[in-house]
Amino acid sequence: MTSESQSGTSQAGVSAAERAEIEALRDEAHQTRRATVPALEEILYQPIPVLDQGFVRVVDYLGDDGAIVQAARVSYGKGTRTVSSDRGLIRYLMRHRHTTPFEMCEIKLHVKLPIFVARQWIRHRTANVNEYSARYSILDHEFYLPEPAHLAPQSAANRQGREGEIPDAEKQQMRDEIADLSDRAYRLYETLLNETQGGEVVDDRRSGLARELARMVLPTNYYTQWYWKVDLHNLFHFLSLRADDHAQYEIRAYADAICDVVEKWVPMAWGAFADYRLGGANFSGPALGALHGLIDESRLADEAYLDGLREKSGLSAREFREFLASLKGE
Amino acid sequence: MTSESQSGTSQAGVSAAERAEIEALRDEAHQTRRATVPALEEILYQPIPVLDQGFVRVVDYLGDDGAIVQAARVSYGKGTRTVSSDRGLIRYLMRHRHTTPFEMCEIKLHVKLPIFVARQWIRHRTANVNEYSARYSILDHEFYLPEPAHLAPQSAANRQGREGEIPDAEKQQMRDEIADLSDRAYRLYETLLNETQGGEVVDDRRSGLARELARMVLPTNYYTQWYWKVDLHNLFHFLSLRADDHAQYEIRAYADAICDVVEKWVPMAWGAFADYRLGGANFSGPALGALHGLIDESRLADEAYLDGLREKSGLSAREFREFLASLKGE
Amino acid sequence: MTSESQSGTSQAGVSAAERAEIEALRDEAHQTRRATVPALEEILYQPIPVLDQGFVRVVDYLGDDGAIVQAARVSYGKGTRTVSSDRGLIRYLMRHRHTTPFEMCEIKLHVKLPIFVARQWIRHRTANVNEYSARYSILDHEFYLPEPAHLAPQSAANRQGREGEIPDAEKQQMRDEIADLSDRAYRLYETLLNETQGGEVVDDRRSGLARELARMVLPTNYYTQWYWKVDLHNLFHFLSLRADDHAQYEIRAYADAICDVVEKWVPMAWGAFADYRLGGANFSGPALGALHGLIDESRLADEAYLDGLREKSGLSAREFREFLASLKGE
Amino acid sequence: MTSESQSGTSQAGVSAAERAEIEALRDEAHQTRRATVPALEEILYQPIPVLDQGFVRVVDYLGDDGAIVQAARVSYGKGTRTVSSDRGLIRYLMRHRHTTPFEMCEIKLHVKLPIFVARQWIRHRTANVNEYSARYSILDHEFYLPEPAHLAPQSAANRQGREGEIPDAEKQQMRDEIADLSDRAYRLYETLLNETQGGEVVDDRRSGLARELARMVLPTNYYTQWYWKVDLHNLFHFLSLRADDHAQYEIRAYADAICDVVEKWVPMAWGAFADYRLGGANFSGPALGALHGLIDESRLADEAYLDGLREKSGLSAREFREFLASLKGE
Repeated sequence: MTSESQSGTSQAGVSAAERAEIEALRDEAHQTRRATVPALEEILYQPIPVLDQGFVRVVDYLGDDGAIVQAARVSYGKGTRTVSSDRGLIRYLMRHRHTTPFEMCEIKLHVKLPIFVARQWIRHRTANVNEYSARYSILDHEFYLPEPAHLAPQSAANRQGREGEIPDAEKQQMRDEIADLSDRAYRLYETLLNETQGGEVVDDRRSGLARELARMVLPTNYYTQWYWKVDLHNLFHFLSLRADDHAQYEIRAYADAICDVVEKWVPMAWGAFADYRLGGANFSGPALGALHGLIDESRLADEAYLDGLREKSGLSAREFREFLASLKGE
Repeated sequence: MTSESQSGTSQAGVSAAERAEIEALRDEAHQTRRATVPALEEILYQPIPVLDQGFVRVVDYLGDDGAIVQAARVSYGKGTRTVSSDRGLIRYLMRHRHTTPFEMCEIKLHVKLPIFVARQWIRHRTANVNEYSARYSILDHEFYLPEPAHLAPQSAANRQGREGEIPDAEKQQMRDEIADLSDRAYRLYETLLNETQGGEVVDDRRSGLARELARMVLPTNYYTQWYWKVDLHNLFHFLSLRADDHAQYEIRAYADAICDVVEKWVPMAWGAFADYRLGGANFSGPALGALHGLIDESRLADEAYLDGLREKSGLSAREFREFLASLKGE
Repeated sequence: MTSESQSGTSQAGVSAAERAEIEALRDEAHQTRRATVPALEEILYQPIPVLDQGFVRVVDYLGDDGAIVQAARVSYGKGTRTVSSDRGLIRYLMRHRHTTPFEMCEIKLHVKLPIFVARQWIRHRTANVNEYSARYSILDHEFYLPEPAHLAPQSAANRQGREGEIPDAEKQQMRDEIADLSDRAYRLYETLLNETQGGEVVDDRRSGLARELARMVLPTNYYTQWYWKVDLHNLFHFLSLRADDHAQYEIRAYADAICDVVEKWVPMAWGAFADYRLGGANFSGPALGALHGLIDESRLADEAYLDGLREKSGLSAREFREFLASLKGE
Repeated sequence: MTSESQSGTSQAGVSAAERAEIEALRDEAHQTRRATVPALEEILYQPIPVLDQGFVRVVDYLGDDGAIVQAARVSYGKGTRTVSSDRGLIRYLMRHRHTTPFEMCEIKLHVKLPIFVARQWIRHRTANVNEYSARYSILDHEFYLPEPAHLAPQSAANRQGREGEIPDAEKQQMRDEIADLSDRAYRLYETLLNETQGGEVVDDRRSGLARELARMVLPTNYYTQWYWKVDLHNLFHFLSLRADDHAQYEIRAYADAICDVVEKWVPMAWGAFADYRLGGANFSGPALGALHGLIDESRLADEAYLDGLREKSGLSAREFREFLASLKGE
């Protein structure tokens, strides 16, 4: 018996009844004096599908790009000036690791995710979490079954992660084995509880086991869900680690979905983050030494060449100046 | 030269120009799908005066009473049910220290406060702070001068705090001495900077000292200001310590102002907090033992008496049952 | 194939090879100027068995009872005075929630625990954690199988937890079913990896799946392990929630083991914690009102009776005075 | 009246009586099974002078370089292998921001510092702090008076910080003015308290003001002191911001002193931190683009040249490979 039979047609892990609840919330409209982001209002409450049954939904948010400059300037009013001066300030704050103004924005997400992903995620401690309790409630019959494209052998290069290919027939067999074990575990879960999620007794000659105990037979590919609330600085930190190539694909899928949300929410801060963190690179002192051995010094001394380079790079005059200073180890 | 002469008539530490900025923000109206609290919108952005020149202003907020039960139930929609069942749940969460749902509400304040108060406040680490920088900017000529009613000798009883009376004439002398030293320090501050806050050079034959150094001559009764953002659980913790009799009067004045804000924002959670934390008491194991020696056992055995007692106390049946169990050390 | 066959005779989840490593560490002796606690040195590094295969081991510690008073007094030397004045200060700090001095002690534990317990534990965020990585390494074939005594139905009273009895024959059946599913999952784990923990290929006609994926078929009763480091204040908070009756039995077993460790480490702080937190009770404002209706006022007015009561209770004069003041709502 | 006359000859802000307390602690010797660092034991408890009256003292520590690899490997014994493999692992962890193993080391410092430095310092929230209480006790007559070399005008370039020169005669005048105001403030402090730190009544016809109020007339160049306890990861974060050129000189002086302590304590981790954080540089995505325009591609293609470059740089083969990959934006 799957959750579908209990709660109507499920789509991306959300039942029809749950969708109706979401739509009711989306139909509400309130008036507020608070900073509001229309692009985020547009998708508010809507589940963004991730993996086969998971999702991310924005449930609430506080602040916008303007809130970052407002806090940096400790202002009485909006604190914002021209678009270009606000953008310049935000990029300056990001570049010089003045992180506290980014903490002045907050977002609350509802996430449905496999337990093994939740276990990686929760290592980020500077956030607020409310997880669905399997001591109170019965978990859904929903588990993660990787797409064939995501099944791969252990990576030899970095001793964690995956890399390489598995023949298609074996992939199918692996998927069947995983699905079979997962279903079998759920049947045992119901047998131990002696109750289905819908409230039916399984076998009236048996006793039921407490929920907090019965749950322990479910594998970590089962889905759980939680409310997760975090400030923008700590979210950026999460994304810099989890939207990275070294992160396990399954958590990266969530991080990627959240990146899209952040871009809608605070486009200036997102731009600075994408340039300086996601797309940037860190060189050690000795690596900077090696770098000098690769640089064509004549170009460094050629003002006209440097002007052209700056223009092509899109760096502001100040950013370019700081870049050259970094190169010289200043 | 005071800040008034520079920025127009100041009232409760807010200049006319700053008031205009605030009013411009208050005039904005946006449409949102987010949970909205009309009673808080009413006072949004407005400075609430505290001490002689300080204030607290609500700059933004996220969530309401409903957000607490929504998170506790990890719901897809509002998650709220009847008013009485929501209130019961919130009181249950408070009573049993299920603190995470309270973390799902967040508030952002702009606070103007004396430096010595800021130093007590900042000890609460689980919050986000952006303070006005005296490395960048010149501080206002605004210092805290206690009202005569708040001048008192060292408390003998608890070895910190104040207690007892000082003759009125001496109070006036103390205030004069504090004001004189504070003004003298500000004049030296301007002399060292060789610049007034309005940008005028003080003496064109002198050099100016860097702001980060000159500020060190200002006493800790000078006002600073910051943006402070915190979740409701950590705010309750702050209030339980700072709205307490043992807290120094000056920080308690801020805590009291924030209590009024919280009551408007999340009245159910406030009610639970007021009953269980502010108005409650904690007894140690040995104290519970002593308590038994004071109880009239015959009343404990008298069901009718207990029924009357419960009714008079306003406790729910469940709360009363848990109260009696606590008494028995269960 | 169990872990025993791979690493020698396992006892309480520790193999012979691991025991030898531990003994080698225990044989070391260094000289130090740091505060040292002989009773903790005595058990340093030794696994304390918890549940069927788990353990807690103290790996390192910093500070002792003296470090608490030393920090409270911000002293240059030891900061301790007489035993009774140190004890009085520590109890005062605990009673009045002056928590920062307790943060000046730190302990590092190595814990082996079922995944479902780890998921409750990790909700305590103010601690440092390093968990064994199933992306790098292969997990042991070790799962938690509850003793028959710990199998019980869902509690009707509090809607979580367990309560009541299950017939012995059913208990045996449940244990068999749990063990069978757990073994089956581990066999699939090895099949998917196509490698045993000992490094043998399972079937040389098959490919192996990456570890980060294969692990997802293991149920949450499988054991994981981590290093967990926490300060004493946050450890007390953990223990007050997890050594409580409302906590699930399995995590309470760990909390109880840690309580014994803390008693050895900082006996004075432990005594204060046991009296004020574990053995204490919190009454709401309305409950205090009800309490007054149960008190025999004549005894409250009888000085001789109160003296006797105080003596019997073991409360100090100051504690008793504060207790009576609390009763009166002061 | 200075603190000297009260507590004997003070040297670097430590009185003779305090030095005797420190020496008594240093004379103790205990036996321990814990990881111990002889180079840190050597300086344990000794004040390291900073600024004119401040200091840093190591009061306790937990862990060493070995504790980092032990935690990374979640080992039963020491967890260390060869020196070069441990060093390689620590550098790998630092390079790839695997920060949790660094959290497994902890250090406790006693710091004496001007209030305005304490206000910058406390912004680092992930640490434990116990500050000397001016509600309980009377502060020393000790304030920071900058050396002439550290007096400089406001920096025009970065709009905070200092830069440029002030004529010597003006410097002397500034120092006199600061000292005069600081002394005057302390005299008022004693007058308001109507008590000296030594316990004498100042004027027996006056009342005394509570300590928590009188302190507010002292400028922020007055010294305070605290116990500060932090884990190595968060300490590195503190040092990366505060041992940086952009930090105010006065807090940098403390950070520099702590850098020396960390080098003694965990030399391998320190080496990795110095290379990757302190001596490193971060380039944004657009800056990496500009960098490509400066590189001599022919050298990048010359294997022999690259080999020589690697050797000269001191980078390991793996580090050099990762460096080239970063250059290519991989």
